[in-house]
Amino acid sequence: MEAGAGAGEQLSLGAVRDQLIREEDSIVFALIERAKRPRNAPAYSSAGAGAGVGGSLAEFFVREAEVLHAKAGHYQKPEDVPFFSQDLPPPLFPTKGYPKVLHPSASRVCVNDAIWKMYFDELLQLFTVDGDDGNYAETVALDFACLQAISRRIHCGKYVAEVKFKDSPQDYTPPIHAKDSNALMNLLTFKAVEEKVKKRVEKKARIFGQNVTLEEDSVNQQGGNACDSECKVDPKVLSKLYDLWVMPLTKDVEVEYLLRRLD
Amino acid sequence: MEAGAGAGEQLSLGAVRDQLIREEDSIVFALIERAKRPRNAPAYSSAGAGAGVGGSLAEFFVREAEVLHAKAGHYQKPEDVPFFSQDLPPPLFPTKGYPKVLHPSASRVCVNDAIWKMYFDELLQLFTVDGDDGNYAETVALDFACLQAISRRIHCGKYVAEVKFKDSPQDYTPPIHAKDSNALMNLLTFKAVEEKVKKRVEKKARIFGQNVTLEEDSVNQQGGNACDSECKVDPKVLSKLYDLWVMPLTKDVEVEYLLRRLD
Repeated sequence: MEAGAGAGEQLSLGAVRDQLIREEDSIVFALIERAKRPRNAPAYSSAGAGAGVGGSLAEFFVREAEVLHAKAGHYQKPEDVPFFSQDLPPPLFPTKGYPKVLHPSASRVCVNDAIWKMYFDELLQLFTVDGDDGNYAETVALDFACLQAISRRIHCGKYVAEVKFKDSPQDYTPPIHAKDSNALMNLLTFKAVEEKVKKRVEKKARIFGQNVTLEEDSVNQQGGNACDSECKVDPKVLSKLYDLWVMPLTKDVEVEYLLRRLD
Repeated sequence: MEAGAGAGEQLSLGAVRDQLIREEDSIVFALIERAKRPRNAPAYSSAGAGAGVGGSLAEFFVREAEVLHAKAGHYQKPEDVPFFSQDLPPPLFPTKGYPKVLHPSASRVCVNDAIWKMYFDELLQLFTVDGDDGNYAETVALDFACLQAISRRIHCGKYVAEVKFKDSPQDYTPPIHAKDSNALMNLLTFKAVEEKVKKRVEKKARIFGQNVTLEEDSVNQQGGNACDSECKVDPKVLSKLYDLWVMPLTKDVEVEYLLRRLD
């Protein structure tokens, strides 16, 4: 989180919302890029591993990529959470501190296991075509980009929760003391806002996933009117991703964060 | 290259063009993503390297990322060319062969040194804002995505050259025998096509780089009419990138390939 979160500054709901909206673009781009390749199932099978390498290519790649990113100085900020946090090396290059605007327990809030399972068991089947074109290395690199973008968006929930808590501590303090997750979830749920987010990511998939041509008045270029079957990722998959997984998991992050907010 | 390039199949100009058009989207997405972050100059300075690490963070990251991608099985295809090819490890996972549609010397054609220099010395300044937000690890990962996308597009020139040679060997054979690069360059240059490509990538930057909102008839959503200053990457930077570097370097690849085509 950068905007409006300089050292000593207050987080603002506006800045957090802008960040979340920008992350939507990243998720849509990442899914469109992954959809260039078919399913490529061998990348996810442990049977194919080479000598001395356990697990699937996808798991190998994400583990090793996270090691590299950690060496480069990633995973310092609360929204950047690795999928395999064990034994990550320290940065080899100087890193800049980030503003400490969250409660220290924020670093312990992580729903990446659920994201991993969702991505490989459910989402991948919805936006890639069945098939095997042999481009396994490229495929898992694209998967990693999707996983990173989705995880960052969801773990930004830590900032959402902090802003909401700061805005009305009187509403949040009783359910936090009572460890009442359901009451917190109700406080954090705004159906009308969620419907707007779903509509917006669907529209983004329609606009960013179209085949752009130079014909001036092609229906395709008008955003809202493109034929979904011509989009590189079905726009409905984006609203489903947000409805079933991104927004619920973000709220899980918010609840987890709030439950520790007064520790 | 996949489309129309199955084992024993002929490459078609249509399939190669479709691939090049798709790569444009990847380049535009990658630049838009990199533009999320400011310049972040310390990522490119050798002064900041940690103990035992020479060079800049950017160089460290690209080198190590290429090692990882090679272990995963990347860099098997003629259009996937590493920036640091020395000492790349062999794949740890089984790879699938790709159709051998090019002359064997294709693997020796590489303009990545020129791409590297262009990207860091010229392009980066054109589409990132001056500043330092400390997100160096994320920044160099985004640079790597840009470099990979641009390099793949340019090295697809090998297929373009092969298709053109196969289409009219009688035109290409004399200048190849005469090692006449200028004559080959003239044969490969189609100004009208290049103008169309520049217009199309500019339009893609305008469409993919807009801020999508739910307002139905916002001017922004109409593609061609968005105000360029509101785009995440100035669309003119894309046409300039293609005009000054991507298309000339692609033709350099084509010429290099053709000069070896009859060896």
